[in-house]
Amino acid sequence: MDIAIPLYDRMTALDAIGPYEVLSRLPGARVRFVAKTPGGITTDNKMLTLIADEALDDVPHPDIIVVPGGLGTRDLLHDEPLLNWIRTAHETSTWTTSVCTGALLLAAAGLLDGLDATTHWIARDLLAELGANPVAQRVVVQGKIVTAAGVSAGIDMALMLAARVRGPQVAQAIQLGIEYDPQPPFDTGALEKAPPELVTLLRGLADLEEASATHA
Amino acid sequence: MDIAIPLYDRMTALDAIGPYEVLSRLPGARVRFVAKTPGGITTDNKMLTLIADEALDDVPHPDIIVVPGGLGTRDLLHDEPLLNWIRTAHETSTWTTSVCTGALLLAAAGLLDGLDATTHWIARDLLAELGANPVAQRVVVQGKIVTAAGVSAGIDMALMLAARVRGPQVAQAIQLGIEYDPQPPFDTGALEKAPPELVTLLRGLADLEEASATHA
Repeated sequence: MDIAIPLYDRMTALDAIGPYEVLSRLPGARVRFVAKTPGGITTDNKMLTLIADEALDDVPHPDIIVVPGGLGTRDLLHDEPLLNWIRTAHETSTWTTSVCTGALLLAAAGLLDGLDATTHWIARDLLAELGANPVAQRVVVQGKIVTAAGVSAGIDMALMLAARVRGPQVAQAIQLGIEYDPQPPFDTGALEKAPPELVTLLRGLADLEEASATHA
Repeated sequence: MDIAIPLYDRMTALDAIGPYEVLSRLPGARVRFVAKTPGGITTDNKMLTLIADEALDDVPHPDIIVVPGGLGTRDLLHDEPLLNWIRTAHETSTWTTSVCTGALLLAAAGLLDGLDATTHWIARDLLAELGANPVAQRVVVQGKIVTAAGVSAGIDMALMLAARVRGPQVAQAIQLGIEYDPQPPFDTGALEKAPPELVTLLRGLADLEEASATHA
């Protein structure tokens, strides 16, 4: 079972590594990190390099696709080589999934037209502009397309997917294997739960990051 | 503020990437991935390569140390270059932390003698053999040493640490930024909650992995 995770510059590492850590533990799974050009991929904060071992074209028909998010998605909304790979891979995939703003790439590829989908809360408007119907859920399943909310939601999504792919006992074993018994120190991890001033702060920071990236 | 994360072959990626994703968002933070030899580091399942940009000696005095776990720890329990780096860095660190079986390396370096500590549930006995007092908690704070339980517990640990380092509001903003509002599909993520047959299954798998690694 091939699981392809496309990497690109300015992606968010945990978007990819959360699902990888879960799905790589499925019996028979082979996670393949792919990119337009194989080699080092620098994450959003420039502090980490992940290696894409293969080119997109080396893995045209993965069983599962996991598209991570990150600020870099904004530069890829018209990137035909990547969008075309997503579109083509989706034709034969068993599951096509995204984490965080990876949903923007699924939408840009035309996969989410008129469908319910989730993304990072900060990108809901943009997801709607791209044709999807954003909903405030952590994981959204629409046929074989599964979208997850921001960054850490990929872990929940992957466990749910593991249960669908190999049954609940295998998924439970993986959850125990990664000791996923979360005890977050605060209850501010969703837009609907966070104090408004935090939301305003993060929206401001995101605007700054996008502006500085545009002018970089 | 320098945050050093030592990487080594057969580590578990999420152990490192969870805390990285949180701590890299602290104002002024610079996460530095270090290794005995800079370059590509292959994770436990051989499906992913992370880059260590610098040598251990390039970052002798980080403010925060995060030691990830993984099967590779078993080969490092007598690795003096790494253990000596941990020991020396700990002398001047503000916080010395571990995730999962990274605690075995803190213990092997002599940092946990007689102290309460946590690790992956499967390694509690080994942690005790190395001189620590294993406790069944997700995060354990002993002075400036913080240990986290298995794999995913590094996210909770890092958020707690973020609050101690920069105050609760910053930590809450980070939690909202990574949309950490976990909704695990099962409640089997801890030894005390999991069905006994799953625990037996995972202990068996772990023994197999260690055996095959020893004979590789």
